[in-house]
Amino acid sequence: MAEYSIKFDVAPEIVSVPFGSLITEAARLAGVNINQPCGGQGRCGRCAVKVVSGAVRRRSALRLLPEDIEQGYVLACQSVIEGDTYVEVPPQERVERKLTIDRVVAEIRVPENYKFNRDQSIHRHRITLPPPSMDDQRDDLSRMITAIRQQVGVENIKIPLTILRKLGSILREGDWQITSILDTQLHDDGYLAQTSLVDISSAHEIDDNPLWGVAVDIGTTTVTLLLVDLVSGQVKAQVSEYNGQIARGEDVISRIIYASKEGGAEELQALVLDTIHELLNRACKRVKGFNVEPKDIVKATIAGNSTMMHLLLGIPAESIRLSPFITAVNEVPIYSAKEVGLNINPEAVILCLPGVASYVGADITAGVYSSGLDDTSQVTLFMDVGTNGEIVLGSREWLVTCACSAGPAFEGAGVINGMRATDGAIEEVWINSENYEPTYRVIGGGKPRGICGSGLISLLAELFMTGIVDKAGHLKQDLSTPRIREGVNGPEYVLAWGSETEHTHDITLTIVDIDNLIRAKGAIYAGYRVLADRVGVPLEVIDQMLIGGSFGKYINIEKAIQIGLLPDMPWDRFQFLGNTSVNGAYLALLDREVHQRIRKIASRMTYIELSADNTFYEAFMSSLFLPHTDLTQFPSIKALIDKKD
Amino acid sequence: MAEYSIKFDVAPEIVSVPFGSLITEAARLAGVNINQPCGGQGRCGRCAVKVVSGAVRRRSALRLLPEDIEQGYVLACQSVIEGDTYVEVPPQERVERKLTIDRVVAEIRVPENYKFNRDQSIHRHRITLPPPSMDDQRDDLSRMITAIRQQVGVENIKIPLTILRKLGSILREGDWQITSILDTQLHDDGYLAQTSLVDISSAHEIDDNPLWGVAVDIGTTTVTLLLVDLVSGQVKAQVSEYNGQIARGEDVISRIIYASKEGGAEELQALVLDTIHELLNRACKRVKGFNVEPKDIVKATIAGNSTMMHLLLGIPAESIRLSPFITAVNEVPIYSAKEVGLNINPEAVILCLPGVASYVGADITAGVYSSGLDDTSQVTLFMDVGTNGEIVLGSREWLVTCACSAGPAFEGAGVINGMRATDGAIEEVWINSENYEPTYRVIGGGKPRGICGSGLISLLAELFMTGIVDKAGHLKQDLSTPRIREGVNGPEYVLAWGSETEHTHDITLTIVDIDNLIRAKGAIYAGYRVLADRVGVPLEVIDQMLIGGSFGKYINIEKAIQIGLLPDMPWDRFQFLGNTSVNGAYLALLDREVHQRIRKIASRMTYIELSADNTFYEAFMSSLFLPHTDLTQFPSIKALIDKKD
Repeated sequence: MAEYSIKFDVAPEIVSVPFGSLITEAARLAGVNINQPCGGQGRCGRCAVKVVSGAVRRRSALRLLPEDIEQGYVLACQSVIEGDTYVEVPPQERVERKLTIDRVVAEIRVPENYKFNRDQSIHRHRITLPPPSMDDQRDDLSRMITAIRQQVGVENIKIPLTILRKLGSILREGDWQITSILDTQLHDDGYLAQTSLVDISSAHEIDDNPLWGVAVDIGTTTVTLLLVDLVSGQVKAQVSEYNGQIARGEDVISRIIYASKEGGAEELQALVLDTIHELLNRACKRVKGFNVEPKDIVKATIAGNSTMMHLLLGIPAESIRLSPFITAVNEVPIYSAKEVGLNINPEAVILCLPGVASYVGADITAGVYSSGLDDTSQVTLFMDVGTNGEIVLGSREWLVTCACSAGPAFEGAGVINGMRATDGAIEEVWINSENYEPTYRVIGGGKPRGICGSGLISLLAELFMTGIVDKAGHLKQDLSTPRIREGVNGPEYVLAWGSETEHTHDITLTIVDIDNLIRAKGAIYAGYRVLADRVGVPLEVIDQMLIGGSFGKYINIEKAIQIGLLPDMPWDRFQFLGNTSVNGAYLALLDREVHQRIRKIASRMTYIELSADNTFYEAFMSSLFLPHTDLTQFPSIKALIDKKD
Repeated sequence: MAEYSIKFDVAPEIVSVPFGSLITEAARLAGVNINQPCGGQGRCGRCAVKVVSGAVRRRSALRLLPEDIEQGYVLACQSVIEGDTYVEVPPQERVERKLTIDRVVAEIRVPENYKFNRDQSIHRHRITLPPPSMDDQRDDLSRMITAIRQQVGVENIKIPLTILRKLGSILREGDWQITSILDTQLHDDGYLAQTSLVDISSAHEIDDNPLWGVAVDIGTTTVTLLLVDLVSGQVKAQVSEYNGQIARGEDVISRIIYASKEGGAEELQALVLDTIHELLNRACKRVKGFNVEPKDIVKATIAGNSTMMHLLLGIPAESIRLSPFITAVNEVPIYSAKEVGLNINPEAVILCLPGVASYVGADITAGVYSSGLDDTSQVTLFMDVGTNGEIVLGSREWLVTCACSAGPAFEGAGVINGMRATDGAIEEVWINSENYEPTYRVIGGGKPRGICGSGLISLLAELFMTGIVDKAGHLKQDLSTPRIREGVNGPEYVLAWGSETEHTHDITLTIVDIDNLIRAKGAIYAGYRVLADRVGVPLEVIDQMLIGGSFGKYINIEKAIQIGLLPDMPWDRFQFLGNTSVNGAYLALLDREVHQRIRKIASRMTYIELSADNTFYEAFMSSLFLPHTDLTQFPSIKALIDKKD
């Protein structure tokens, strides 16, 4: 087969690829980063590169402007190499690395009455062995196993070969006194129950010396990691970072598509492991008073949505996105860090928390536990607002759940001037109902660059409540203000003029953006309705609504109700819980009973597949209005509107 | 630290080593093979190389002749590099690769009534899963586990991550019908009991299609491997090869010393794995009618002495040779092929059979089972004659065992003209009692090159019975024959003149060789005595003596009794069983009850440490005569001698 030489302006070396390879494939070979926010589907138009010379066949040039095409721009993920080619890669949009802890991590508290010795699956034991002699020539291993059985009372211990290899020298260095670390899981349901010998050492650890564990939440967008001293239960460091997979797809579907390409799964797995490893290093450095290294970490719990869990473990995720939407695994068996590829103690037990379905993952079961929903008598609605929108309705008696494919509009994606909630994002908007002039607040206080999720909710609500946008989402074009105009994508509202912005372009909200936002909020609201209808509980009788997810924390309740994203209830029934997923992972890290309870939650939850019948579709169609086609569902908004009219 | 450049004449590249490195270390780096039969202790003098130029400090030059030293010869394992050096490596003695199956493998028979479905730990099952649908969205893994539970009745299944990664595609390729391979061990004693999911496939295997397993015996000298169809129980290929570790030490002590050097353990592990892998390839090619590859092998049992087991697994073996002689592990936990580094199905269960002590390993427990000793009412003596001499005395009621550090004299080592039992070895000798002229038989029928174990026994017996050697092992020098002369190592008997031999040198047996042989046979005989005395059973009441080991098969009983190697019993009480170790491994491969019985044998055997008191020493001193200091223990020999006198 013919091979062609490809040179990228940003790479030192020329690579050779077979006829028919994509530019993105050549780029990966050359170590060149080309962002593919849609996962290489050719849908987002953001992987444009310039072919300076050579032979390339465009499969698609979606979203490229004619003048770009004329200049030689092609979509890297849709262009097939058919000859020696020279490619220029424009500077790639860099994800702002400015996640601040207070914005993404829930307030973490050590559970009351936490006792290392009572609650933990993992324990450190000082073991004393009778030294061997000519009269007692038992082998090192059975000598140790007998001592553990007698002194700790544990049987059926899994002995890793790595530990067997160092056993003899540790026993002798320690003069037949060793410190052992044992992790005993309470497992059932056809999975293997076991006690793992995680490590042995000749060092004499003081009982209240820290023992290190990590709780990890792998979000589609953000990975959060807590470094925990298992003895005291305290979080010693909290760190967050964008998931390194973002440049290979901004939502789970794009990631799954990217993973299904040759080498894609391995790349995504490596990217998220890199992110975790960087976070581990950073967390270890932040601990004061101890010199902690990742290898000192002896246990990990991991939460995340089902796709993230599959990609972390290198398990193909393709079936998640294809009807009937099946995961390879909801409850991952227990593997060691070595098997998972995590650079902590190689024999550390990795607890991946259990998920329920393709789109209701371990982030939700952990969140439900962390929110207390599974143990309350109050009828409670729980929502995790992340890149997906998952909803749980229930109480200690029953639990139903569904996932709404809301899309990432509220994370700033799919909206032309949308962006994530970092410096430069407009996060709150007020519009004067007389002259339609806005004021806004920018994260970080500088000039704006775009609008983040809470800003979009706020803007849409203001546009609606001031009458600039009608209930169907149409911009009223007969208002006398320069803010409303016809743009390249149709009618739009100018929130900030170029003179005020960082990049000197106008920041607008177009009719297409408004449509996307309404579809997103409509999907979520329809989710509530379907769940409530399915169990015969009117939304009005819901006692409380708990909102998890880092983004959820910044929603303005009033405005979210005005656009119909949240149900119309007294404001005091809403509670923002922050990152409930990492919090649940943290609690499961501390206490094996919690792990059992999260497993119980997973098995108790009835998953409603929204695409299975027309109920959801009808509820969705009724929700594609501001706030809803049926205003009786939003009595407080109806009262406001009636008052104005 | 200073680095020096070392060039070997036989290697293309110059390597760089720090000041103070040994020539052997530089050689390993350069990929140059230098045999070290004593394991690098500087005792055998066989790693001599020539330093042509450079700076080398000799720590020792033991066994080098003055003229060699003058020419620049040094011991590679005892010479420290102190400057840039050029080294010539003389051609290394090559181990003859002529092991023939009939010489090393016991006659293997499928046990009567063997039934795959009843006896095996490993089974192949056809599993049918209900296909997923919008109404049944269970994940692939729990769907499979439930089906296995319902259709096979197995719980607590260990699911390897490698299988989880391919589960989704196998299920869909097979249209929700798969073939699973499950291996369920009966384990107890504080070790983990488990069912391993070894593999899944979408192929529909016919029930009586072969399922491949291997039984391996890792001898210090020879590795033997049987490729077995687990369904029929038949051995489909038998192969043997010298253990690739031989050039790094000819006995276990030398190997342990070599392994304790930096990088030595890893090298020895790689060498024995290489040997096994070559045997796997060779065995697979020999199978007729099926295209078998090593990756098709789904189970392995391994026997071998304790040192070989440690070295295979990369477990330090140092404590085995140091008082109080402790192994790191007698019963190796169950690991997968992947963990052990064996290139068969990565999730295949590797059963390492259990040993009893540092010098009574799995080769002996397997041998005891295979010999039937543990289930007979007859008082039985079992001996495995390999590089070590292990003895078991007992019956179904009781079992005692010990190991005699006999040394490898009977394997041809430690005897100047000794060699292994391959082509060119004198294997049987007759001496004319009138003129002291010998006749002999050579393996392969060509010119002789040396004397193998059975030849040495035969020769020593003839020398004694013809009066050339007296009961103390002294050569009578007043006999009128040119065969007896004073050599460089003292008095010697010339068995073959240079004119008859392949290498044109005389083949002799020196007084030092005789001493070595007497010490070796004395140690073994003393072992019988100590065991017999310890349990109060006179040697005379022993009902049968079973001799295992490939070498044992070729011993001439009459002559072995004459020198006092075997006890003086009617010849019909002796039985040669061949390689009982590989036979035991084969039987354990076929039947998990056998594995349990071998574990039971290991726990039943009382190990007598011969070095623990003076009993052995006294018995050994009394045995340093031909046949023994106490002739009443050898009545048939006494009668012969009395008759002659």
